[in-house]
Amino acid sequence: MSAKVDEFTVVGKAVKRIEGDRKVTGAMRYVDDLSLPGMLSGRLVTSIYAHAEIVSIDASAALQVPGVIAVYTGKDVHPSGPEPDNRTGHMLARDKVIYYGQAVAVVLGVNEAAAAEGAALVEVEYRQLPAVVDPLEAMKPDAPVIRKKANAGVWADGADHGAVVAGDDIDISRLPDNITNAVRFTRGDIEAGFAEADAIVERTYTTHWVHQSYIETHGSLAAPDALGNLTIYTTTQGQFGARNGTAGVLGIPQNKIKLVGMEVGGGFGGKGIMLEPLAGWCALRHNAPVKIIMTRSEELSMGNPAPGSVIDIKIGAKADGTITAIQSRMVFDSGCYPGTPVGIAAMMAGGYYKTPNLSLLGYEVLTNKPGNGAYRAPGAPQATFAIEQAVDELAGKLGIDPVAFRLHNCSVEGDPQPTGAPWPRIGLKEILETIKEHPLWKNRHEHGKAVGVAIGGWPGGVEPCAANIRVNTDGSMLLTLGSTDITGTNTVMAMIAAEVFGMPLEKVKVQTGDTDTAPYAGFSGGSKVTYTVGPAVQRAAEDARQQVMAIAASELEASPDDLEIVDGVCRVKGAPDREISIAAIAQKSMTFGGKYEPVYGIGKSAVTDRAPGFSGQIAAVSVDEDTGQVKIEQYVTVQDVGRQLNPAMVEGQVIGGTAQAIGWGLWESMHYADDGQLITSTLMDYNVPKSEQIPPIETVILEIPAPAGPFGAKGIGEPPIIPGAAAIANAVAAATGKRVTAMPLTAERVSNALHNGQG
Amino acid sequence: MSAKVDEFTVVGKAVKRIEGDRKVTGAMRYVDDLSLPGMLSGRLVTSIYAHAEIVSIDASAALQVPGVIAVYTGKDVHPSGPEPDNRTGHMLARDKVIYYGQAVAVVLGVNEAAAAEGAALVEVEYRQLPAVVDPLEAMKPDAPVIRKKANAGVWADGADHGAVVAGDDIDISRLPDNITNAVRFTRGDIEAGFAEADAIVERTYTTHWVHQSYIETHGSLAAPDALGNLTIYTTTQGQFGARNGTAGVLGIPQNKIKLVGMEVGGGFGGKGIMLEPLAGWCALRHNAPVKIIMTRSEELSMGNPAPGSVIDIKIGAKADGTITAIQSRMVFDSGCYPGTPVGIAAMMAGGYYKTPNLSLLGYEVLTNKPGNGAYRAPGAPQATFAIEQAVDELAGKLGIDPVAFRLHNCSVEGDPQPTGAPWPRIGLKEILETIKEHPLWKNRHEHGKAVGVAIGGWPGGVEPCAANIRVNTDGSMLLTLGSTDITGTNTVMAMIAAEVFGMPLEKVKVQTGDTDTAPYAGFSGGSKVTYTVGPAVQRAAEDARQQVMAIAASELEASPDDLEIVDGVCRVKGAPDREISIAAIAQKSMTFGGKYEPVYGIGKSAVTDRAPGFSGQIAAVSVDEDTGQVKIEQYVTVQDVGRQLNPAMVEGQVIGGTAQAIGWGLWESMHYADDGQLITSTLMDYNVPKSEQIPPIETVILEIPAPAGPFGAKGIGEPPIIPGAAAIANAVAAATGKRVTAMPLTAERVSNALHNGQG
Repeated sequence: MSAKVDEFTVVGKAVKRIEGDRKVTGAMRYVDDLSLPGMLSGRLVTSIYAHAEIVSIDASAALQVPGVIAVYTGKDVHPSGPEPDNRTGHMLARDKVIYYGQAVAVVLGVNEAAAAEGAALVEVEYRQLPAVVDPLEAMKPDAPVIRKKANAGVWADGADHGAVVAGDDIDISRLPDNITNAVRFTRGDIEAGFAEADAIVERTYTTHWVHQSYIETHGSLAAPDALGNLTIYTTTQGQFGARNGTAGVLGIPQNKIKLVGMEVGGGFGGKGIMLEPLAGWCALRHNAPVKIIMTRSEELSMGNPAPGSVIDIKIGAKADGTITAIQSRMVFDSGCYPGTPVGIAAMMAGGYYKTPNLSLLGYEVLTNKPGNGAYRAPGAPQATFAIEQAVDELAGKLGIDPVAFRLHNCSVEGDPQPTGAPWPRIGLKEILETIKEHPLWKNRHEHGKAVGVAIGGWPGGVEPCAANIRVNTDGSMLLTLGSTDITGTNTVMAMIAAEVFGMPLEKVKVQTGDTDTAPYAGFSGGSKVTYTVGPAVQRAAEDARQQVMAIAASELEASPDDLEIVDGVCRVKGAPDREISIAAIAQKSMTFGGKYEPVYGIGKSAVTDRAPGFSGQIAAVSVDEDTGQVKIEQYVTVQDVGRQLNPAMVEGQVIGGTAQAIGWGLWESMHYADDGQLITSTLMDYNVPKSEQIPPIETVILEIPAPAGPFGAKGIGEPPIIPGAAAIANAVAAATGKRVTAMPLTAERVSNALHNGQG
Repeated sequence: MSAKVDEFTVVGKAVKRIEGDRKVTGAMRYVDDLSLPGMLSGRLVTSIYAHAEIVSIDASAALQVPGVIAVYTGKDVHPSGPEPDNRTGHMLARDKVIYYGQAVAVVLGVNEAAAAEGAALVEVEYRQLPAVVDPLEAMKPDAPVIRKKANAGVWADGADHGAVVAGDDIDISRLPDNITNAVRFTRGDIEAGFAEADAIVERTYTTHWVHQSYIETHGSLAAPDALGNLTIYTTTQGQFGARNGTAGVLGIPQNKIKLVGMEVGGGFGGKGIMLEPLAGWCALRHNAPVKIIMTRSEELSMGNPAPGSVIDIKIGAKADGTITAIQSRMVFDSGCYPGTPVGIAAMMAGGYYKTPNLSLLGYEVLTNKPGNGAYRAPGAPQATFAIEQAVDELAGKLGIDPVAFRLHNCSVEGDPQPTGAPWPRIGLKEILETIKEHPLWKNRHEHGKAVGVAIGGWPGGVEPCAANIRVNTDGSMLLTLGSTDITGTNTVMAMIAAEVFGMPLEKVKVQTGDTDTAPYAGFSGGSKVTYTVGPAVQRAAEDARQQVMAIAASELEASPDDLEIVDGVCRVKGAPDREISIAAIAQKSMTFGGKYEPVYGIGKSAVTDRAPGFSGQIAAVSVDEDTGQVKIEQYVTVQDVGRQLNPAMVEGQVIGGTAQAIGWGLWESMHYADDGQLITSTLMDYNVPKSEQIPPIETVILEIPAPAGPFGAKGIGEPPIIPGAAAIANAVAAATGKRVTAMPLTAERVSNALHNGQG
């Protein structure tokens, strides 16, 4: 599909988000806005230790609180067998707690105040155990063991993080218990590669846990009916996964759960399944609706943030700038449940640049922290913070312009990824060329700013899905999807349907059904909604259009090929008096005695060709020499989006992702004490960027079409968060001559680098 | 599909209704069980005159009632233009009332008690006008005119009554204003036909208005959102029609209304659209949820019952029993809005029996009564009461056994209907043969009972529709329909899907979606749900099965033709170790990175071949010579159902319809005073049969397959209500030698016939 934007009626226009009015007027209803007759509120009792045996739980004081109905513990929800080894199934800890903030009991009250008062009075006696917090310590054979590896290889819900990778097999059963996954990618002769090199950079980069910090915390409301069926209203990015997971945990058929995916107040990958099983369990136990909403502190301590990592990189290049070898050992901190994006991290660290010799080894390691989760481009910001600083430093060592160095080495279509599979057509080179010519970079020596550059990519996610389209007898259209709309995707889907069918956009209603009524779609993540649901919508619209054309052809006694749809009317080309409205066609297909089947357009997609998306960012910074405070003076973000279906929304996504990248780069990290207690357990402590801290961000959008994407579009959500921290660190290096190898680049770290030589 | 029942796994079994548990345990929620935050209750103010100008409406006292929020009148809802000429659009009377009980105002209160108290205090000043109640009087040129015929031919919602007929054109603009429709069917030379006859019967038969008397009265709850969208929870047999009608009346796009068809507490044709527009108007006006539930008296006075009729029949036959001519003039009382089933009545009266000479003329006439509506087999019981008594009497005059007489003349496949179109294969002859051999009839002279027989038929309804099927990753199935389940149709649809797909019935969940999410289906009426939605479900299940087979074939590296589905597992025939479960197939089609499209089976149907259904009934009665009280001693109902998909439900439908037929025959009629006031305005006055009044009913089911029906099934809802009143009247004639030509055969009428010679 190489048509130009101006050939389109709807696609390519900056259309307002269809749900925007409801959001800005406060009319949108989220889970916590719901109330049902007889509803109980649940409040969690959480662990004050990161690792401890539970000796006893005394609920007697809690049960004296007026309005407290019941207190349940792990012994109620997990009465037998070993404790579940995955976050979804592990509703409440039973025998021991394995992270600070883990839920050990739930108090049900007639309202939230009663439940909270009760929760504060539940007495839990613990026997503290040694906690392991540092993943490098956790890897050691003598480290405290989170869980014996009896279950290795059968983890129930290792998150897929929006991408799937496969490397060489490593027998992890031979590794210490806390190592739950390992990946290895090799190519060529790594030692020979370094022997060829004229310069080598070798460093260790550290990244810390980062929370998605969506405005709305996790919450679920489960309502039972008299037959043991559940309706669960919840905030999730993937309603089918949340339903299936809940059914699995509760041991009931999927058909007994209707999961209603409510409007999501931010997800960024962190909202899959969380409280649904526990709320469902309580609702069935009490035969009453039960709502549980996490507090912000619970969200920070028991959510599923992005994991920290420790990444060793060694990279060498010849004097002419040709990279000869890349070696890395990546350790991802999995928290207390397995499943990290270490594979994606390896794919990115070893994939951006050509090299004949490659050696990547990744481990994921259990620690006494909450289970880690997906956060926008899982694994990629961590890997990119490392590789893009190393590349930058290497270029500097060789005296080569860092953009020219990257252009010389960057992967293009056909170059091997770490798996050996060739890159498809990607926009990395064009992004670097754009940066090279951008005034902020090109003239950096003239305007005297300290400027850093980095690039980053995302492999792109795919998942089968379907969509359906009906027409109404007033000539309007209804598009039904299964995908949760977080970023405005439903607006884009309505645009695609309008464009393909030939329907004015204002006549298209688009909705996400619940799990009982929606066509299937997967988790809204991995930059895959537009890329995979879009083609399903295209096909549904084509299917509906063909059905309409067939009825019109019969009614007008014409060939479908001779018909066109103009302004809601189907007419014979060149004979404008021979026409029939979409409304009349709909009526004829939905009326007593009608001879035409109802117009019901179905589209399915199972895209398997991925469309990796790349971002390049230019950061100009100033550094306060005394305090180490970094200030962003100017910021440019360049992204290849395949095709802009809605430029306003594309820009919003790119700026939003870049803002988060700046948060990762400068401020955000979760601090755990040595005993595993979370220090940053409120938003007073955890430093999310405020809007006035984010500078104006200039966006430059490239359009290199993806063959399988709708009108050439690629997924755009993940890339802009990836290179930001590295670009800022490179800018800080340009400003100070010092490398800060730990993220985020807080004033303290930069000051240390300036004054003590190490960041 | 001529397979025998025992070839099937599910179809043909007496399966329990899937929603039965919820109904018998009281767990089912109906509209009036719903409550929403901030909800207002509406109560109507209704007219005490059948025909009057509205001089003024004083709401001041009502507005003083604590909790009363507002009072709206016809001037608010119909601010300009002529008053609407159809029941749907005529939310409140404005300038004049045209039937007793018509709504003139609605009072909104914070609860129902406040609204009711307010409604009682609204002062309406009327100027009474002469009312016309008798349709024969209403036809006269000098009769009071309900409404000028300026709009003739453009009636917005003349009910289709579940069947469509077309006869000769009659220019009704030349007829008096109150005549709003006329149909004519002619064949041969009617006068010559009577000249040939050796015996003639000529009588006038009268039927009165009959109310559907569902347990649940009409009710709607409309909830607005901040953007002017409405969700309407309502009791309707056809949610798409109700939504579209409401959108039309309110002048808003169909996409702005989500209509949720709630469980229906009985409909029998009477629940199409009623309070939805008014509740919706109030909800939008107040920006609050508004619920209006009709009282029983309102239901009786302003519902839409079956119309009364006056039917002249003249029928002649030769001495050998061959009918030579049938002539009829049928006048249907339309009430104050046009749209009666007079055409269907003519089709039946002139269609059951062969005759070379036919002359049918039907009129519908406005009177000052509520608009008439559909009631199970609209028009057919009235016509059958007439023709089946006339035929019976004629047989008697000729000294021919009445069943033999009917067998001699009954229409069979290929014989012309009044329209000239040939009857398809029908079971009328087989029903008569069954009756002929039934002991109650065959031995009637031996056991000395007074036995009467009648037959009746229904043309069968059709309407396009669609269905969809998904599979879940636990191997279960979800079937989504647009058709409202009143009689257990969803249970049958689940059975069809299970049978066709090869899925255990307990793994099939079936649901009716709302208008936003459901595939299209029309009004659940006209005996068309099983007949038309069934094939859509068959196709959806076949489609889903094929998709599953294709994935299995790819995974098992086999041809789809070599596969079979057994117990939820797809396997290679003859190689039982090569298998994959439906659950695994579902998982492969709905997973990150999956290469198969999600299983999503779609079925559509646009059946145009009708499958007329016939019933024959044998009534044995005793008559109290003093009081005229008729007692049913024994009752047999014979019906051709095409194929019994669920024998328990078939029997329930047949017995239920027969019970209503007995109600029509013996007790039920709405009485209007000469000034149009409804006398039978409560269930103390309107005589619905109580369960102890209905005798045990023996059912005899015939199965003559319908080619287009699912597994040969025909619609079964309408036929059993049709011949009952005539069978009872014929039995009374057998018992007393007197013909009672007015329905119902109350003790008063039978006594009159016995003692005064005229019933």
